[in-house]
Amino acid sequence: MSLTAVVLNGTLKHTPAISNTRSLTDMVGEILDSLGTQVEVVRLIDFEIPFGVNSDEGAGDQWPEILAKLRTADIVIFATPIWMNQRSSVMQRTMERLDGTLAEGNAKDGQYPLYGKVAGAIVTGNEDGAQGVAAGLLYDLQRLGCVVPPNADCYWVGDAGPGPSFIIAGGHAHHFTRRRVRYMAHSLVEMARILREHPLTTNLRELTEQADEESTGSRQQRHGDGCDW
Amino acid sequence: MSLTAVVLNGTLKHTPAISNTRSLTDMVGEILDSLGTQVEVVRLIDFEIPFGVNSDEGAGDQWPEILAKLRTADIVIFATPIWMNQRSSVMQRTMERLDGTLAEGNAKDGQYPLYGKVAGAIVTGNEDGAQGVAAGLLYDLQRLGCVVPPNADCYWVGDAGPGPSFIIAGGHAHHFTRRRVRYMAHSLVEMARILREHPLTTNLRELTEQADEESTGSRQQRHGDGCDW
Amino acid sequence: MSLTAVVLNGTLKHTPAISNTRSLTDMVGEILDSLGTQVEVVRLIDFEIPFGVNSDEGAGDQWPEILAKLRTADIVIFATPIWMNQRSSVMQRTMERLDGTLAEGNAKDGQYPLYGKVAGAIVTGNEDGAQGVAAGLLYDLQRLGCVVPPNADCYWVGDAGPGPSFIIAGGHAHHFTRRRVRYMAHSLVEMARILREHPLTTNLRELTEQADEESTGSRQQRHGDGCDW
Amino acid sequence: MSLTAVVLNGTLKHTPAISNTRSLTDMVGEILDSLGTQVEVVRLIDFEIPFGVNSDEGAGDQWPEILAKLRTADIVIFATPIWMNQRSSVMQRTMERLDGTLAEGNAKDGQYPLYGKVAGAIVTGNEDGAQGVAAGLLYDLQRLGCVVPPNADCYWVGDAGPGPSFIIAGGHAHHFTRRRVRYMAHSLVEMARILREHPLTTNLRELTEQADEESTGSRQQRHGDGCDW
Repeated sequence: MSLTAVVLNGTLKHTPAISNTRSLTDMVGEILDSLGTQVEVVRLIDFEIPFGVNSDEGAGDQWPEILAKLRTADIVIFATPIWMNQRSSVMQRTMERLDGTLAEGNAKDGQYPLYGKVAGAIVTGNEDGAQGVAAGLLYDLQRLGCVVPPNADCYWVGDAGPGPSFIIAGGHAHHFTRRRVRYMAHSLVEMARILREHPLTTNLRELTEQADEESTGSRQQRHGDGCDW
Repeated sequence: MSLTAVVLNGTLKHTPAISNTRSLTDMVGEILDSLGTQVEVVRLIDFEIPFGVNSDEGAGDQWPEILAKLRTADIVIFATPIWMNQRSSVMQRTMERLDGTLAEGNAKDGQYPLYGKVAGAIVTGNEDGAQGVAAGLLYDLQRLGCVVPPNADCYWVGDAGPGPSFIIAGGHAHHFTRRRVRYMAHSLVEMARILREHPLTTNLRELTEQADEESTGSRQQRHGDGCDW
Repeated sequence: MSLTAVVLNGTLKHTPAISNTRSLTDMVGEILDSLGTQVEVVRLIDFEIPFGVNSDEGAGDQWPEILAKLRTADIVIFATPIWMNQRSSVMQRTMERLDGTLAEGNAKDGQYPLYGKVAGAIVTGNEDGAQGVAAGLLYDLQRLGCVVPPNADCYWVGDAGPGPSFIIAGGHAHHFTRRRVRYMAHSLVEMARILREHPLTTNLRELTEQADEESTGSRQQRHGDGCDW
Repeated sequence: MSLTAVVLNGTLKHTPAISNTRSLTDMVGEILDSLGTQVEVVRLIDFEIPFGVNSDEGAGDQWPEILAKLRTADIVIFATPIWMNQRSSVMQRTMERLDGTLAEGNAKDGQYPLYGKVAGAIVTGNEDGAQGVAAGLLYDLQRLGCVVPPNADCYWVGDAGPGPSFIIAGGHAHHFTRRRVRYMAHSLVEMARILREHPLTTNLRELTEQADEESTGSRQQRHGDGCDW
């Protein structure tokens, strides 16, 4: 059975506006496809996703259907433009919704819905901030249960100050970016193949019980507002 | 004439839900008020603010009326909860809209709409991340034209891991936070009083022309997509 | 053959001063040991490590012998205190030296010396900043070739403002920290066992050649000052 | 009496090696000089500065003489290269030493040694990370008592991936960087002139006493290990 990858695109622009982030994503998708991986790209802003920190915020919320896609994927990739040196608000809104999954450890081993998936990040911007944004996204995905393999990200940014964006600047032919696109796609697929054969099985439930026994403070103090982390 | 301060609250929760960020904001507001400053708090999520990077995104957009408040204030304070170690998506959406003001230098001196205002930051979270979030907010506000005085922020976070939030944890009586609230309010007011008497007058337009003359590249290359930074 | 782990401790204090970071490291080491992993902790400040960005900075440089330990380990863990919301200068000096390995891809596949190792991070501080520091360390280790599994870090920080450090504050009994210590150790070992059986084999040399063919710019422009990234 | 500015250069290279950071610093220095400000640049790595978090670490420590320069300056500028997306270790070592000044409030008003000085940041790198590094430096300087005016930083970085550094890349003629150099120098001088006429006078000692009265916890708990923040 072939691998599957889901990419969340955090552009601020609705379909059909051209998204630079989507354009770089397509470069990665092409290599993933050539390696036998089925790729689906979700443009987050086209969906109704209320602000919040739960996996389901009620009537009209389309986040649960996107989360369902992530749950079945082998590879999850978060793609975002940089605005004011940060991930986009659309991407951050999604991360806040994923916070909800930290309280949804499964009954058997306490692991989160994204446990054992392979994570990647794609970042575009006129200038500066790509590594900081990628570091934050990959850290969050690791917290949510994902594995971050070597060369897990790719990005394009221009030099200091304002300037043309990825497509107009000819970023497709930028050597560093092309290298990173290939490194990233190959690394994600190799790791996902290994993990499909040898899934991670750490039992958080047991480890939490061991930690409970050796710690101070009441359970309520320990687990706070109901959020598991 | 008394000073005015506008606080933008980036909580994810609509009125009338209790906001921990608002609660800490009120502590700052009380001191500001005692120092003769009129304070207005804007709960961003209660307004219709489309995603985007312009100062006006068209019909139904309520951001222009909030931006108008910022334009007339002496002090602007950005208050946000921490989610996944970042400013909230609601706060980030606002920063993206403020990006639009970087292209709106006034005709006389090229300065941005927030030029010369005094900036502060307020941050709350269950745990960790307050300084990083405050550093980012204050940096952005400086970019947008504001002055950041000493002790420009206050925050509360609990110790490592999940736990109760500001109000339930009794953060109001936390010594460090109380100190920072007082330092911040006094510092913002002192700086605003000085700047009202002695406004900043750097002429970006002239300086840009001087830089133009001594640089390489066409004007188009220099100024990119129309964004001034 | 048993697994091996090397921990680099970035404390600012020379032996025999007590290191809070070492104390938390020992908690992780104990669990690693119970899982059949041999652990060696290197207190960086006790060694002669010149500032620089090469793997060998000449006579008297003790970094090469520490790098040799990393090269043979299955698991590499970077442990640091937080100062001014950042990793310690001693830890940053080490990362700068590791920059040198980015130019040392092996002849066969171009992979870096740390390729395929499993990475973790340990962070301690009086207050705030742990997640940002851990995110940066893990991102760097991923760049250097490591795999970052789920739950790859553990940390302890007190609540907002100055206060007692890890040991005096009784951080050893802090529930969240104990949980993370166990999660981290088990996750690192499980991933290292899988990778020992099924090593990563992505060939960067081939992928770089493919990228070379489809890109603009001379090789010199592409590879810059000799640094590979 | 003319204004004075002290720039700390955090390059990793000893004199007489060419420093890209110094080269950009000189561009700022030239404008500062033309505005009647005396500029002194300190190349930190040329001095004996032990790791530590106190203002004086004993025999042979040359940090006290550099700190003395900062104490008398109107403007303090921190200049650093980017390594692995961070400020240099040499710059971070200096910030750790400045942590010591947080415990050195003066007897009258409790303010720190850098109180009321105007702060700026200069950043250079092959690629990416400048804004994040500048944000961190300016935040720290604000914590230490400085005022951060609008346009308080300037930087140069190339586009994504490895490449030539500032000097070789012709960064001196880069339009954005030239603009920022001018904005920064003019803004720092204007703010310093205002503050020389109208010095900040917030009394932290009084505000701390007010906070003490309204808070919970013992003084020891409040002030922790002796560090004031």
